[in-house]
Amino acid sequence: MITFNKPDVEQFFRTYGIQTFAVSPDESQVVFSTNLSGKYNLWSMNLPHQFPQPLTFIDQSCQALTFDKNGRYMIAGFDQDGDENTQLYALPPQGGTLQPVRTKQGYRHMEPQLSKDGQRLYYTSNKDNEVYLNVYVYDLEKDEESRLIEGTEAATTLVEVGPEESSYLYSKHFANTYSLMYVRHKGEDILLTPPTDQQHTVSDATFISEHDIYMVTNYHADTSYLAKYDLQTQSFSKVIDIEGISLSTVHYDQTHQHLYLIGAKGVEDRLYQYDLNTGENNSIDSPTSVIEKLVVSEKGNLYLLGRNATRPHNIYTKPHNATEWSPLTAYEVPGVPENTLVEPEILKYPSFDGMEIEALFFKAKEDVNNGHVILWPHGGPQSAERKWFRALFQFLVNRGYSIFAPNFRGSSQYGLKFMKMVEGDWGHGPRLDNVEGLEYIIKQGYADRDKILLMGGSYGGYMALLLHGRHADYFKAVVDIFGVSDLFSFVDSVPEHWKPIMKQWVGDPVEDRERFIKDSPITYVDMMTKPMLVIQGAKDPRVVKAESDKVVEALNKNGTAISYMVLEDEGHGFSKKENEMKVYRAVLDFFDQFIE
Amino acid sequence: MITFNKPDVEQFFRTYGIQTFAVSPDESQVVFSTNLSGKYNLWSMNLPHQFPQPLTFIDQSCQALTFDKNGRYMIAGFDQDGDENTQLYALPPQGGTLQPVRTKQGYRHMEPQLSKDGQRLYYTSNKDNEVYLNVYVYDLEKDEESRLIEGTEAATTLVEVGPEESSYLYSKHFANTYSLMYVRHKGEDILLTPPTDQQHTVSDATFISEHDIYMVTNYHADTSYLAKYDLQTQSFSKVIDIEGISLSTVHYDQTHQHLYLIGAKGVEDRLYQYDLNTGENNSIDSPTSVIEKLVVSEKGNLYLLGRNATRPHNIYTKPHNATEWSPLTAYEVPGVPENTLVEPEILKYPSFDGMEIEALFFKAKEDVNNGHVILWPHGGPQSAERKWFRALFQFLVNRGYSIFAPNFRGSSQYGLKFMKMVEGDWGHGPRLDNVEGLEYIIKQGYADRDKILLMGGSYGGYMALLLHGRHADYFKAVVDIFGVSDLFSFVDSVPEHWKPIMKQWVGDPVEDRERFIKDSPITYVDMMTKPMLVIQGAKDPRVVKAESDKVVEALNKNGTAISYMVLEDEGHGFSKKENEMKVYRAVLDFFDQFIE
Repeated sequence: MITFNKPDVEQFFRTYGIQTFAVSPDESQVVFSTNLSGKYNLWSMNLPHQFPQPLTFIDQSCQALTFDKNGRYMIAGFDQDGDENTQLYALPPQGGTLQPVRTKQGYRHMEPQLSKDGQRLYYTSNKDNEVYLNVYVYDLEKDEESRLIEGTEAATTLVEVGPEESSYLYSKHFANTYSLMYVRHKGEDILLTPPTDQQHTVSDATFISEHDIYMVTNYHADTSYLAKYDLQTQSFSKVIDIEGISLSTVHYDQTHQHLYLIGAKGVEDRLYQYDLNTGENNSIDSPTSVIEKLVVSEKGNLYLLGRNATRPHNIYTKPHNATEWSPLTAYEVPGVPENTLVEPEILKYPSFDGMEIEALFFKAKEDVNNGHVILWPHGGPQSAERKWFRALFQFLVNRGYSIFAPNFRGSSQYGLKFMKMVEGDWGHGPRLDNVEGLEYIIKQGYADRDKILLMGGSYGGYMALLLHGRHADYFKAVVDIFGVSDLFSFVDSVPEHWKPIMKQWVGDPVEDRERFIKDSPITYVDMMTKPMLVIQGAKDPRVVKAESDKVVEALNKNGTAISYMVLEDEGHGFSKKENEMKVYRAVLDFFDQFIE
Repeated sequence: MITFNKPDVEQFFRTYGIQTFAVSPDESQVVFSTNLSGKYNLWSMNLPHQFPQPLTFIDQSCQALTFDKNGRYMIAGFDQDGDENTQLYALPPQGGTLQPVRTKQGYRHMEPQLSKDGQRLYYTSNKDNEVYLNVYVYDLEKDEESRLIEGTEAATTLVEVGPEESSYLYSKHFANTYSLMYVRHKGEDILLTPPTDQQHTVSDATFISEHDIYMVTNYHADTSYLAKYDLQTQSFSKVIDIEGISLSTVHYDQTHQHLYLIGAKGVEDRLYQYDLNTGENNSIDSPTSVIEKLVVSEKGNLYLLGRNATRPHNIYTKPHNATEWSPLTAYEVPGVPENTLVEPEILKYPSFDGMEIEALFFKAKEDVNNGHVILWPHGGPQSAERKWFRALFQFLVNRGYSIFAPNFRGSSQYGLKFMKMVEGDWGHGPRLDNVEGLEYIIKQGYADRDKILLMGGSYGGYMALLLHGRHADYFKAVVDIFGVSDLFSFVDSVPEHWKPIMKQWVGDPVEDRERFIKDSPITYVDMMTKPMLVIQGAKDPRVVKAESDKVVEALNKNGTAISYMVLEDEGHGFSKKENEMKVYRAVLDFFDQFIE
């Protein structure tokens, strides 16, 4: 009878993403930013019906989305072609024309929050303070704005407005491993964690009343726990610590007096329900291995956005009393049954100095396996490769490649100490963790020494370039996706508000000149002898095009086989399906040349 | 607070269409062709979940879709950019790569039907018989094909394969008002309606056993009724006639021994359930005013595709025992509440010879009304303007234009006699019905004599050109969308299989030479003095581009203000959202010039 060919590469490209979502106050509507039509727009489901309806047609990514508490409109933040300069617009709940609310071209407007009566809009912007940012309150009725909090010392962003609008939680971000939480209360700025010389983070906080604040912090600890600050007694106290888990966010269910906590255990997330009355903490099954956003409705119903390794972004819901999650969206790889996709194996290996490194290994199935392994150093670097769907991974694996993705030192989700290890050491420890990982998988039989490829994006692109320059013998070919090539120009070209964190994160170009030279891929350009594909977004504000231009120019002079692909209408990532497809096809075509 | 602008034109463009749909045998899946991503592709809902999943990414229209009875695959027919040369492909139910099954470039493959075991594919094609077509049976397992029925006399198409695959219903289409139904039974070809000189149609027929055939026909009547043919007794008998309704299709529910009948009452459709055991016929509420497709599942559940004047294409379902329909899709005009769209008024007026003409009048709401009325002669011409959603209408009405759409003589849905009146008279009676309609609405106060515009497509474009040429004084400006300009070249350029019907439909270029000259718009090109916008699809196989070229060229010589818009990748209609938007914007911009 009729037999069908194996899945086309295109099918893997045709998976959709969800960037963010919001739930209307009466829970009749879930609005989400997705690329269902090829480019990102806002779509809505009028629950319980799940058929999506388009709300915008601007073909731009949405970075922020919040409903008026009375359901009259939404405030949505969009940038332009990935330039990250988010502007704030109002939009009727059933769609229509976007109305500019707070816009200033070339600047970003973040973390919009509406007052309960929908009359005041709170947000953070770099428009008057490019380095440290300010928090503003804009009166929608009077069309008047005032500065609420002036950023100083570090990038300062609004976290939450207190229930009576007389207290405000805000964060100062000194580094990815050093951020402090403050509350502005009766005109006073109060630091939530007690004074200490020890760097720590407060990654999230929420009011449960105008005086009681819960937060997640790793203050005097390696992993983050739940803590409380009492404004009346001005006291900080630890509430609950979960063994082996580092908490990241806290969400308040006022109706049931619960806190929902999201925490990480390496490559996976966990969800907990903490009872404020009894102090009991229960684990709740998550429908996804990675949780990207949780919304707790006023009634205490949960809405969750997340991914599994074999299932792309989807939104799920769980009524407060239910035990099961129901999917609202139904994204999957079209025509490819989930059980034919590859769930990664978790590997652990000792690195050069004995430190344990966790890694994911996606093994191509026997019938397609071409014997080649792609080393994927993730981006960030203070991020991690996790059990989340990547079309790029699943389609490469489907085409016979295996993928090795180590969470080298500096990765998040393994405690504060581990994460700090990349700070001021971009190119040594993390690089050797990658090299040791290769040696490990070769010795363990996961890979052949002469069948290794290399690919990475952002910091992973930097690492790919550096590994290429310093360990070219390992690799048959290399793909660099907007990777940093020169630390000197990188620290100089990032957006203003990143600059304060650059010294701790990367280093100082004067004080650390020797190390900058040693750790810049461009230093080793003469040793980059393997064929390379370089991909760059022309509008990338994080790793500017000059970074890629530099390495391409140098290699062109050297006569190294190099392909350079510039995406004119993209920033640091792909907002347009057509571009994503073009890049992924190019990656596959490139690697396929080296498979005999 | 925040106030929003009135709906943008784009919102009306952003309504989606559904071309066809199919239901999997186990009713777990509804597959439909829709332009949700901007271009037409197949999408699926895995019921009861309604979130759509993409099955194809070819960006082409689907003309036919049928499931293997065992649910293993679908057969889908797609053409290329509207060229109407449908090719047949197989597709896995959850999507994947389309596998060509019956393809021959430049030819069309229609009405695919699978045998119960899914081994044989029946279809109609013009590949070996361009004028009259043949019916083929293709063995999917053996990859062998044979001709089942050779077309003669008229375009011959398969209607239904008998339950035991030993009888075959097929139709011969002599004209839109003259089509006969045959059954091939034991090698014999049997005409289902008794011999008569009176032209009539059998618009649909279905087996309820290998010997019992039910059909809808206007044999010896003006409107179509339900009739039966008994193969054993070789007898035709009338079953039931519904006063004032002309039936169009019949669908068999074997489980409950019902027939579902769709019939037309002028601008609206009606749905009936006829009980084969009791002979009782019950009216069933339809969720839409126009029904475009009905599927009766094996269990007797109904799936219906249709439109209302204020609601675009949607699919609904009604379980056999339920009284209510549930929507499966949720298409509407984004951000425009349905109650702000305009439901048309039904007007009836006597024409020049006393004949009653029915028309729809879409009146712009008071707050936007610009006082101008657009006359819309519909296409076909043996079709009708009905209570179905047209983005073009609703957005023009929203922008202040009213629309007058008369179902002039020759329109369908008003009986056989009425429909025949356009045959051999394309340019006289129907034209005067339009003119009389204008006089009527002017006298009745629906329109100002000096504020009338004109627009039509296909035959409506022909009528727009003709009215422009012969009654230019009525109109301030004219839009012609792929209209016929010259009857001589038109009858010559249509596809081969249309040619047999041309003589009765339009006439003979030799015998009717005088009339062809009199009724060809090109004859009056010197009198086309009003500004005109002409729109043409370059791949249109029905009204070829030369038709528009001719009139544009002539008018250019005359110095008439004319704009010409050619869509390179479209046929007779719009398959691509971007093109549709471009055309509709152009129409609005064009008309807006003439509003003071």
